[in-house]
Amino acid sequence: MGGPDLPVLPPDDSMLSVRFGREVANYFSGSPLNRLSFLRTDHDFLRAAFSHPSAGFLLMNNLSPLTRDDSRLAFVSHPDVEPLTGGDPFAKSEEDMLKEFNSDKTQPLVLFLGVDDRSLLPSNGTEEGTFKFKEYHGSPYFAVDVTPRGTLTDAANKIIAALEAKGLKFRDNSPRRMDLPAPEEKSPPTNGRAPSAPHYTAAIYGQARALLDWNTRNPFCAQCGQRTLSVNAGTKRVCPPTDLAGSLGDGKPRERGPCATRGTISNISFPRTDPTVIMAVASADGKRLLLGRQRRWPAYWFSTLAGFLEPGESIEEAVRREVWEESGVRVGRVVVHSSQPWPFPASLMIGAVAQALPGEGEEIHLGHDPELESAKWFEIAEVREALAHGTSGLGEAAPKGYKEGALRLPPQQAIANRLVTAVVEGWGLPSKI
Amino acid sequence: MGGPDLPVLPPDDSMLSVRFGREVANYFSGSPLNRLSFLRTDHDFLRAAFSHPSAGFLLMNNLSPLTRDDSRLAFVSHPDVEPLTGGDPFAKSEEDMLKEFNSDKTQPLVLFLGVDDRSLLPSNGTEEGTFKFKEYHGSPYFAVDVTPRGTLTDAANKIIAALEAKGLKFRDNSPRRMDLPAPEEKSPPTNGRAPSAPHYTAAIYGQARALLDWNTRNPFCAQCGQRTLSVNAGTKRVCPPTDLAGSLGDGKPRERGPCATRGTISNISFPRTDPTVIMAVASADGKRLLLGRQRRWPAYWFSTLAGFLEPGESIEEAVRREVWEESGVRVGRVVVHSSQPWPFPASLMIGAVAQALPGEGEEIHLGHDPELESAKWFEIAEVREALAHGTSGLGEAAPKGYKEGALRLPPQQAIANRLVTAVVEGWGLPSKI
Repeated sequence: MGGPDLPVLPPDDSMLSVRFGREVANYFSGSPLNRLSFLRTDHDFLRAAFSHPSAGFLLMNNLSPLTRDDSRLAFVSHPDVEPLTGGDPFAKSEEDMLKEFNSDKTQPLVLFLGVDDRSLLPSNGTEEGTFKFKEYHGSPYFAVDVTPRGTLTDAANKIIAALEAKGLKFRDNSPRRMDLPAPEEKSPPTNGRAPSAPHYTAAIYGQARALLDWNTRNPFCAQCGQRTLSVNAGTKRVCPPTDLAGSLGDGKPRERGPCATRGTISNISFPRTDPTVIMAVASADGKRLLLGRQRRWPAYWFSTLAGFLEPGESIEEAVRREVWEESGVRVGRVVVHSSQPWPFPASLMIGAVAQALPGEGEEIHLGHDPELESAKWFEIAEVREALAHGTSGLGEAAPKGYKEGALRLPPQQAIANRLVTAVVEGWGLPSKI
Repeated sequence: MGGPDLPVLPPDDSMLSVRFGREVANYFSGSPLNRLSFLRTDHDFLRAAFSHPSAGFLLMNNLSPLTRDDSRLAFVSHPDVEPLTGGDPFAKSEEDMLKEFNSDKTQPLVLFLGVDDRSLLPSNGTEEGTFKFKEYHGSPYFAVDVTPRGTLTDAANKIIAALEAKGLKFRDNSPRRMDLPAPEEKSPPTNGRAPSAPHYTAAIYGQARALLDWNTRNPFCAQCGQRTLSVNAGTKRVCPPTDLAGSLGDGKPRERGPCATRGTISNISFPRTDPTVIMAVASADGKRLLLGRQRRWPAYWFSTLAGFLEPGESIEEAVRREVWEESGVRVGRVVVHSSQPWPFPASLMIGAVAQALPGEGEEIHLGHDPELESAKWFEIAEVREALAHGTSGLGEAAPKGYKEGALRLPPQQAIANRLVTAVVEGWGLPSKI
């Protein structure tokens, strides 16, 4: 299966190119880290990784990442975070953490992201040597939440002040900064709000943001309503059976109400990722492309249709339902093109190229779901022109060479752009259905 | 993009075959219903659909579906469910439902599934005519939870008794009934536990089970810990600002604590679906297939590897990580083959064909994640033989013609089987990387 020749991997990384072929790796994917997910429960590993001099820590304040002057992510060292995390945050076993659970105390969130075992990042290793644990090696990476909250407010403020004194800053994560990832929104992203950070750090940022947001969005158990405890280095939240808060003064923890998630495995204990479909729909003859726009977008700006996949749907069914509901167009053929992790807050964007059924199937009708202001068929030549001279982030000005009134499209970092490009290049489309 | 010629659609449905081409539609997909998701907030629509004589109701008791003698799903009529739902459960607007929220009262769960607008199901229409609303038509389908619980216990028991007196029964949904969907499990399904119900009703059952399970698994708000209210005909749970329970006796509802989900849109208000990767891994030369087995499986029974996609991963990255963590094998090329909604409790299985990197890349090492008892490379000829004579559900006996000691595999309803079949047929594999 071919595909457009994208800047999948940095040009200097020839080993990876050989390894992975020419697949389409979209922005926010392509992490340099090996997650070693099976070691997240191993506190010997986590302790050693946390305290190693080569460990890098990405700090986030209200989901805004710490950055340098040039907007690159800043990774700090463990002494920088110790006022909040303590020197050895993984010292206690999970069993002891559960026994000592106290819902009156704010728990520091220290997320293990992975190790750079291919030495792809510049800071790998130190004078003291590379981090090694059993057969695994490479600089460890963590994310730490420094949002001032609860009993950690003072410690967090102290860290923030110390880092800002060094000239680092938490980069605003607001919707008006279009060169940064946009905040979450109900409609799945169909636009170009993507950061300008390098490919590798965008993937690290995306992983950290999604995981941290999941933790802070789910402090209570959806099954029983009681507070949960983050374990497995930020990748699981459990519902403890007892609580030191509200104890009867005998020093013994208070028994909490029952919860069905205890003693079994429930998906709600694990991070949530919402599968989303996003699709470039070609006409039955492949000569036109269906695009839509929302009212709040800049004039002439269009993108691909998109929507959340629902329970009980295959990818193809979700594509057909969303296209019909939003535009009235009926889709036949659907081919998955590529995917993009989208951390606002936690989507997996599954990108597809689709083809409308001929005749009546191509008729546009906006009367079903009133989500779009407009949906239109564009000639491929017009789309090609827009890819060349009309792409930009949603909040950015049109690029040089853009002629007022012409079609505008999302930038290359957005999977929408990659899907449109694929259709223009004839990817995934047979000569006829 | 071709693919194995599967029994995608019933042979009598030629219109659909023309519409959708020959894509791989796996078991639990292929629903005959149009979900009309944009009408779930329209109470005029919901009221009319609920009370129409052609409306069909799938009842579930502790997630076990109501069935006839021959194990087909039984759809009942609205008078059958009224002791629990009342005659007009969508009479109140969402605004009024919120105002009158009373956490002491158990709320009936009535899920709108969709309308059969292509008349694919036998019960479409009645003597009184077909259901119509604006431009939409076709028999409406709902699911109703009749699990005896809270203040609805008596009403639920009454309905259950009345239906059992008619010879209908709630089919056991336990893991020992391998011809029925298996209960949820931590490991994503890599086996053949799939129901024997007809294709269409399997998809309806899957949608209903996933949605009902999500509602009953999330009675509390994960953001603030307070009870939530099901709205949008079972497809959204909101966190009301007030509660009639615990009011001060003045008849006015009590103000509840603040919640960040109010006045904004949060993903946790909507059903959760967990994206999962499942992959048939071919050797670099395409001549062998990697399969694994868990300790508790029957002797000689193997399946494809699988695992949950994590935040910040693309599909391809999740495939490579899971294969390496579980088997030590390093994957290069990854091609998405098809997908399968898996309602135990709520996965989207994204099926891929993958190819190992040559040489050291193919070496098996089980020492990373100890999930599998064994992982092995099988010659394609042996796999082909197993597809012909060794497939069955996990709890079923080996089929006739099976020779003791030979490889056993999951049945056709499982996407694992479809992926293995694809590799045997050479799907998705280039002659070399």
